[in-house]
Amino acid sequence: MEKIVVQKYGGTSVANPERIKSVAERVVATKKQGYKVVVVVSALGDTTDRLIELSKQITDHPSEREYDMLLATGEQVSVALLAMAIHELGHEAISFTGAQVGIITDTSFSKAKVINVNGEKIEQELAKGRIVIVAGFQGMTQDQEITTLGRGGSNLTAVALSKSLGGCMCEMNTDVEGVFTADPRIVKTAQKLDYLSYDEMLEMASLGSQVLQARSVIFAKKFDVPIHVRSSFSNKKGTIILKEAKPMWEGVVISGVTLDKKEAKMTICDVPDKPGMAAQIFKHLAEAEINVDMIIQNISRTRRTDLSFTVPQSELPRTMKIAKQIVKDVKAEKVTCDDDIAKVSIVGVGMKSHPGVAAKMFDVLAKKKINIEMISTSEISISCVIGKKHAESAVKALHTAFGLDAKKPEEK
Amino acid sequence: MEKIVVQKYGGTSVANPERIKSVAERVVATKKQGYKVVVVVSALGDTTDRLIELSKQITDHPSEREYDMLLATGEQVSVALLAMAIHELGHEAISFTGAQVGIITDTSFSKAKVINVNGEKIEQELAKGRIVIVAGFQGMTQDQEITTLGRGGSNLTAVALSKSLGGCMCEMNTDVEGVFTADPRIVKTAQKLDYLSYDEMLEMASLGSQVLQARSVIFAKKFDVPIHVRSSFSNKKGTIILKEAKPMWEGVVISGVTLDKKEAKMTICDVPDKPGMAAQIFKHLAEAEINVDMIIQNISRTRRTDLSFTVPQSELPRTMKIAKQIVKDVKAEKVTCDDDIAKVSIVGVGMKSHPGVAAKMFDVLAKKKINIEMISTSEISISCVIGKKHAESAVKALHTAFGLDAKKPEEK
Repeated sequence: MEKIVVQKYGGTSVANPERIKSVAERVVATKKQGYKVVVVVSALGDTTDRLIELSKQITDHPSEREYDMLLATGEQVSVALLAMAIHELGHEAISFTGAQVGIITDTSFSKAKVINVNGEKIEQELAKGRIVIVAGFQGMTQDQEITTLGRGGSNLTAVALSKSLGGCMCEMNTDVEGVFTADPRIVKTAQKLDYLSYDEMLEMASLGSQVLQARSVIFAKKFDVPIHVRSSFSNKKGTIILKEAKPMWEGVVISGVTLDKKEAKMTICDVPDKPGMAAQIFKHLAEAEINVDMIIQNISRTRRTDLSFTVPQSELPRTMKIAKQIVKDVKAEKVTCDDDIAKVSIVGVGMKSHPGVAAKMFDVLAKKKINIEMISTSEISISCVIGKKHAESAVKALHTAFGLDAKKPEEK
Repeated sequence: MEKIVVQKYGGTSVANPERIKSVAERVVATKKQGYKVVVVVSALGDTTDRLIELSKQITDHPSEREYDMLLATGEQVSVALLAMAIHELGHEAISFTGAQVGIITDTSFSKAKVINVNGEKIEQELAKGRIVIVAGFQGMTQDQEITTLGRGGSNLTAVALSKSLGGCMCEMNTDVEGVFTADPRIVKTAQKLDYLSYDEMLEMASLGSQVLQARSVIFAKKFDVPIHVRSSFSNKKGTIILKEAKPMWEGVVISGVTLDKKEAKMTICDVPDKPGMAAQIFKHLAEAEINVDMIIQNISRTRRTDLSFTVPQSELPRTMKIAKQIVKDVKAEKVTCDDDIAKVSIVGVGMKSHPGVAAKMFDVLAKKKINIEMISTSEISISCVIGKKHAESAVKALHTAFGLDAKKPEEK
């Protein structure tokens, strides 16, 4: 039986009719290789922005239901055009909206969660030898209301379809060639990873890698759907993300070094050190839906302590306002902030079985005379906040020190 | 109980966000007058053209299914934006695609016929006090395929909804103030008609009036849905179209004079006059899907005859090619054509009960020294083909002669 593959193409891959034709050629080539192909597409390049602009001319506070109704048209345009382009190449293809293929979501308009996918209709069409094209980013509630899935929604659609089609390979066609050991724009010797585990990809995504958003990876991990991150513009193999498979990573301690320069550090100084204090502080930030990343509180010997945390730089003004109120409420001394920082992290499942990874990281930074302002660790990552001016040199030094520069032993 | 009204707004009425806001105000005003309002909207001004242009960059022969998938997005954008605009005015509104409100069509993509409308969902929403906005021009097959209804499709949607909502008034908001006794651009003294019968409107539509297309009028007549043709840009009462109601038209012989300058006359000369000849000729034209309008064949005294007919000027080259083949096949002498013609017609249910209307028409044209080239009649209309240069003066003369210029007796 032919294998099924789900291919997802983002907005830049289908930015205009010419690119849509190129995607059609890739899809047909895949079919000729003997696959049954399901394609998920996003809206054409700037379509979504144009629709948002239209709605802004009407209201600053659109109803989320109507906003979804509006935005969902973008992907519907793409799927129809891609189907036409595939027909033009002499192959059978049929397009569907999310609603039509039974992508059922909850009713959280603009950020709906997929609760079920009925793969039956797609399988029927595949059985007829057709290429099936599905509008990404959208679904339908049980009451047939049109919903959208929020940021990274098309990736989510692709993973959900892969799952409903028996866990077939889910190809994410992007503008990069795969997941790299570090950002190739910073580290010239960065290498494309052939394989990566879901957990590592998740850490990388949350630590600054732009390749895949965490949401679709979490979804893929939950249902064990393999993801192939590759370039829309080349035929090279990219990075395959799947469950941890031990032999594959034998001897590889660190899979990558990531960098995030978009955070800011905030410190509430001289906070009374008593139970419930942290809860009180972060409750206010949570209510304001401010996404707090690292939180650092050290032991105190004076019944007072300093509490530091990082937030997105874009949230700095809002956070500052709330923090000042907190300072008053808890009778702290003051609040300081610093957006001249960078977070550099190393990620790798291998660190679980290799002691001394953290020590090595600190040592590398120390030798470069880089001061570490904050540290936080997870099971498979270690992050250090440092001064922004040291960001690139820290990434390069870590990349070299952990043996990512040279040719790695072939893992395939 | 509040009365329901269906209001339809075409593409020019919702051409941009400003106009959408104006439509929102009209809709809200109607609601405040105590109506339950259902709104049907077309795609924003040039949206459909833009979508067609995109598809042309991909293929010259798009699949009709995918074409409908593409075009249906236009109205979906409009309904969402109009809902937002009504919310902005502080009123409740909810938008739906054709599929969502159960407009079920056959599977003739790009020119689907409405086979059923389930008004239940709309009634539920109206009962909640909401304004319901429905995407025009589109429906769904029983297999949940998206279809479009072809030219004038949004009008059809509006009539179908009026029917399913108990035959309520169907307001067609257009860029004219109603149906006039003649085109006001030609006849300065033309008057807006307060009432008109379906049959007269149908004759007028097929004889050149641009106000409403025949298709939605036929549909309205079939289900006895009253139509109110009025201007989107004023609050004046327009023309109400409904079944013939005798007292209303008492004494009114002619309701209007129409003009069509878009036809061409073709004559196949010296055709053998034997059974089956006309059938043979028009079969070829029908196969080529050429829309033949008038057909004139006079008696012959020589076993040979001339056969004349009119076709749209745009079809002249294709028709000529077919006609030349016909001349060969039936051994006729030759084919001639003339696109320097105009068809002027008078329409009115009153002519059924008033003899001498045709004679009067011919007399009016004769007095103006206008030669009549072809004549055809229906039960409620008489059409004459004349030279194009006489078109406007013929219309004016007929308008005056049949008493349409002066103030008509009030018919209300």
